[in-house]
Amino acid sequence: MSTHERDQIVETLARYGHVVDRGDLDRLDTVFTLDVRYDMSAVGLPVMIGVQALADGAMRLGPQNPVAHHTTDVVVLEADEDEAVVESKGFMLTVEGAVRSVSHHDVLRRTAAGWRIASRTLVPQTASLGGRLGAAAGAEEAPARPDR
Amino acid sequence: MSTHERDQIVETLARYGHVVDRGDLDRLDTVFTLDVRYDMSAVGLPVMIGVQALADGAMRLGPQNPVAHHTTDVVVLEADEDEAVVESKGFMLTVEGAVRSVSHHDVLRRTAAGWRIASRTLVPQTASLGGRLGAAAGAEEAPARPDR
Amino acid sequence: MSTHERDQIVETLARYGHVVDRGDLDRLDTVFTLDVRYDMSAVGLPVMIGVQALADGAMRLGPQNPVAHHTTDVVVLEADEDEAVVESKGFMLTVEGAVRSVSHHDVLRRTAAGWRIASRTLVPQTASLGGRLGAAAGAEEAPARPDR
Repeated sequence: MSTHERDQIVETLARYGHVVDRGDLDRLDTVFTLDVRYDMSAVGLPVMIGVQALADGAMRLGPQNPVAHHTTDVVVLEADEDEAVVESKGFMLTVEGAVRSVSHHDVLRRTAAGWRIASRTLVPQTASLGGRLGAAAGAEEAPARPDR
Repeated sequence: MSTHERDQIVETLARYGHVVDRGDLDRLDTVFTLDVRYDMSAVGLPVMIGVQALADGAMRLGPQNPVAHHTTDVVVLEADEDEAVVESKGFMLTVEGAVRSVSHHDVLRRTAAGWRIASRTLVPQTASLGGRLGAAAGAEEAPARPDR
Repeated sequence: MSTHERDQIVETLARYGHVVDRGDLDRLDTVFTLDVRYDMSAVGLPVMIGVQALADGAMRLGPQNPVAHHTTDVVVLEADEDEAVVESKGFMLTVEGAVRSVSHHDVLRRTAAGWRIASRTLVPQTASLGGRLGAAAGAEEAPARPDR
């Protein structure tokens, strides 16, 4: 993957927070494919399919949406001409001032308009070392991780 | 814009937090043009002109300055040989441990020393979906956004 | 340094949070050289040498490890074919929901497997303007900074 292509992918991921935090829900298609699969089942929410479902979901969530979304730590794991597997980290600031951290496990697809997220799976970061301390001690299994 | 030029812009924005958080106020000129216009009017502060005004403002603010400034989500919106319009997101950690999030709307100019921020407008992120939930329901106007 | 080389360095720094926050301590060698020197003496912890010492230290720290590590603001200060001096900023989210910010002062070395962090010094960000307000008033010295 060329450095230019990688820059385009990094910018697509960066646009997410700008679009959502301005409430530009009619511009979600600058970040996601129209048929995006958005999986937040790890936090008990239904899997959403399509940018319209994302926009509707955000409106329903209303003031419970975080006030800010930031993306960091972009790593391109695999890429060919038309598809890239990318992981990144996100954190959100709630209106109450709390900070939440998640991992994004994405598949991006090249479209005529540029690279877009075709699939995103969110994994919340809620336990030190991914909750594997117990596993290391033999007490429990590590949670499933979608990208490994 | 070449990938090299984009890297230079990203690094200029990244230097900001390092310079300010070390208190290297005599190195603000490695981030900003000497005649920078720094607009925080969205949070009720006066527009400041010039790196010396920025340094003076930081000294006056004293311990009320955040202890840390981080920049994320850099998107180059427009660029030619000598100027670039760039948006990014920032978050700050206060000495009390609170986190604040802002958007940066910047114009960078190429100087003999490299890319420098010639104009920065800060917009605080304080409401879900940019405060447009009410607007979507017809109750109120969305706030003015300097870059759109 | 080519843009491609810079991307590789940025990704090495980005992998850190993914590896640690998943508890993939047997993959610390994808981020650090085997003989890495990891200096947290600024927060009263011993200097650790080697990825095994890092892994052991993380296991000992257990649930006191932050639940999330994010890296931002990467600046490549110096680079030649085989070594790069890089500063970045990190922030961590504790299990109690507190946010901490640090600066990373790194030396990376090119290895057969790619760029790896050979030396990392952490400096916590705990005072506005790097604690230099007092120094500016003549009251006290600024703290030593390892990279300047």
